[in-house]
Amino acid sequence: MSEENFRFEVTHICKQSGVRTGRFYTPHGVIETPIYMPVGTQATVKSLSSDDLKKIEAQIILSNTYHLYLRPTSELIKRAGGLHKFMNWDRPILTDSGGFQVFSLSKMRKVGENGVEFRSHLNGDKHMMTPEKCIEIQNNLGSDIVMQLDVCTEYGTSYKDSKKAMELTNVWLKRCFATQKNPKQMLFPIVQGNVFNDLRLESLNRARDYVRCGIAIGGLSVGEPKEKMYEVLDFLKDKWDGVPGPRYLMGVGSPDCLIEGVLRGVDMFDCVLATRIARNGTAMTSHGKVVIKNAKYKDDFSPLDDECDCECCKNYTRAYLRHLFNAGEILGARLVSLHNLRFLINLMAKVRDAINNDRFLDFRKEFYEKYKE
Amino acid sequence: MSEENFRFEVTHICKQSGVRTGRFYTPHGVIETPIYMPVGTQATVKSLSSDDLKKIEAQIILSNTYHLYLRPTSELIKRAGGLHKFMNWDRPILTDSGGFQVFSLSKMRKVGENGVEFRSHLNGDKHMMTPEKCIEIQNNLGSDIVMQLDVCTEYGTSYKDSKKAMELTNVWLKRCFATQKNPKQMLFPIVQGNVFNDLRLESLNRARDYVRCGIAIGGLSVGEPKEKMYEVLDFLKDKWDGVPGPRYLMGVGSPDCLIEGVLRGVDMFDCVLATRIARNGTAMTSHGKVVIKNAKYKDDFSPLDDECDCECCKNYTRAYLRHLFNAGEILGARLVSLHNLRFLINLMAKVRDAINNDRFLDFRKEFYEKYKE
Repeated sequence: MSEENFRFEVTHICKQSGVRTGRFYTPHGVIETPIYMPVGTQATVKSLSSDDLKKIEAQIILSNTYHLYLRPTSELIKRAGGLHKFMNWDRPILTDSGGFQVFSLSKMRKVGENGVEFRSHLNGDKHMMTPEKCIEIQNNLGSDIVMQLDVCTEYGTSYKDSKKAMELTNVWLKRCFATQKNPKQMLFPIVQGNVFNDLRLESLNRARDYVRCGIAIGGLSVGEPKEKMYEVLDFLKDKWDGVPGPRYLMGVGSPDCLIEGVLRGVDMFDCVLATRIARNGTAMTSHGKVVIKNAKYKDDFSPLDDECDCECCKNYTRAYLRHLFNAGEILGARLVSLHNLRFLINLMAKVRDAINNDRFLDFRKEFYEKYKE
Repeated sequence: MSEENFRFEVTHICKQSGVRTGRFYTPHGVIETPIYMPVGTQATVKSLSSDDLKKIEAQIILSNTYHLYLRPTSELIKRAGGLHKFMNWDRPILTDSGGFQVFSLSKMRKVGENGVEFRSHLNGDKHMMTPEKCIEIQNNLGSDIVMQLDVCTEYGTSYKDSKKAMELTNVWLKRCFATQKNPKQMLFPIVQGNVFNDLRLESLNRARDYVRCGIAIGGLSVGEPKEKMYEVLDFLKDKWDGVPGPRYLMGVGSPDCLIEGVLRGVDMFDCVLATRIARNGTAMTSHGKVVIKNAKYKDDFSPLDDECDCECCKNYTRAYLRHLFNAGEILGARLVSLHNLRFLINLMAKVRDAINNDRFLDFRKEFYEKYKE
């Protein structure tokens, strides 16, 4: 039984805010929550090696089933000994179901009861993703945490369509649950329902029987204003009783959203934002965004973030980083990627520290006093 | 006097081959020769951090005056505290004169007695490079070893034009020598003369008075067959008496050319080849080239080079590297760059070891038995 290989313990509840820190035990190690997970879409966190990721103290990474399924294929990764071995990462890995990418990347998609038919964004080949197939692929990958196939709706979707998607998500959950037999992998159900509270609640309640250790909240940060997302999280906040394990908010990872998510009871986050903006030369710092190509950094011989302990901030100046970006040198993208991830990982370490010291609300206030969007 | 800050000592002469190992003392540390120098054109060895370079035991790197002069400018680097500080590299740096790039990269060039007029390859701006300016720029950069401005001719240039270029190179050497006053920098004269032995000898003899500790051989590996290059080196081999310091063969760095250069008395090498081919997925290994995108590596779960100790070879497989290149992931370019440089650095360590053990000819034979082009 997979339950033996996974355990979540709440280590502290902040007296000031009521939010929690925890430890999530997995076959590849323990994760301290709340946590931010770097995204390694194609079995690599763009530009960074696994040594880099350990240096910035990444505890877990996420990888994308859709991408790996298409290339290099999950069969190849299975032959390599699994995703951990393939990409040389011996700490926990979470894989998504591929569903979100089918909806956002593939050229054509047709959702039916049985699954989603789609065409590869790489070569147009036709594929069929079913709940069973999604689990089979993730079994091949050997990730620690696997996601159910779900139907994600964008912001603005009607109540009726959101309800249908939520219901189908639940049907697919049951089929995923029946397929997932690997005791070294934990299946997370996904709560859908768009911005409709009653649908969210129904989705959560339908999922309850299939939660063993951990659940995800999907379909947020898909175009809606942040306030809408916070409303959904606020609504769900007191509905988690009897749902064991961590709560994972999918695809959310700006610094302020991490803080707000934690405040609303979220334990796990992932997002490509940190590395995506890094490759364009935008850094997340304790004082807010730094767009390193700006002329004002030309003669700025100070580090990107004077509070950061990463290789980028310890060794290089803003003037040098600006030069790298102006000269089209990929070391620039790499150093800022490294920094942005370290910034978020470190931010979450500080969040845990604040919770453990019963001062998360104070911490949040201090954060916003310094951090300017 | 710069002589106090620089010293070259021959540590051993191989009884089997007559070639030497040495130690080259510079203000930023000692270099063991024969040595291969990674190239950091734009103040960065493409994709690698200075921590990476130390891990692969790079003792010295080269950077390009032409590129840095245009961007970010040598004045900016001076304000940063010099190139070492700007790029966070505290070991020796050699900068070229910019001459070669003016000839190979700039849009228009006009060579006159006074210098070279050229247009920037970046924006077409007109610039004038003179011997004095070339030294002034390198003074701003603060590199340990600086090169004279020279006139490089391509393979196939007539005797008459090669002679003129060689003579102008010597005129410019005198002006560089008169300008270079920084005691922390050592000026290397450059021997030109294309493939004409008498011109090479005249160039060397004209340079003699201006050699303090080190000399360079330029204008080779510019399109001529390898045999032609070896003939020039063979001719020069017994002409170095009374020329103090190491001999640096500019722009040459394939594994076999390193071996052949050492055999012909060369102490220092640099070349972009290793990192340039790495970015296209071609690796240098002890068994010869590996073109990692080839289908035959799809299921090859062995390291790139089973004799290599670099991060790439210790942690990743050929199948994974192939996936990275197929997926357009820059970690691929980085890992193969790291490996190729480590391969050449390690090759030169083995060369030094063979020389010190009086078995360089045996080593050369063993190398070719394994290494297939």
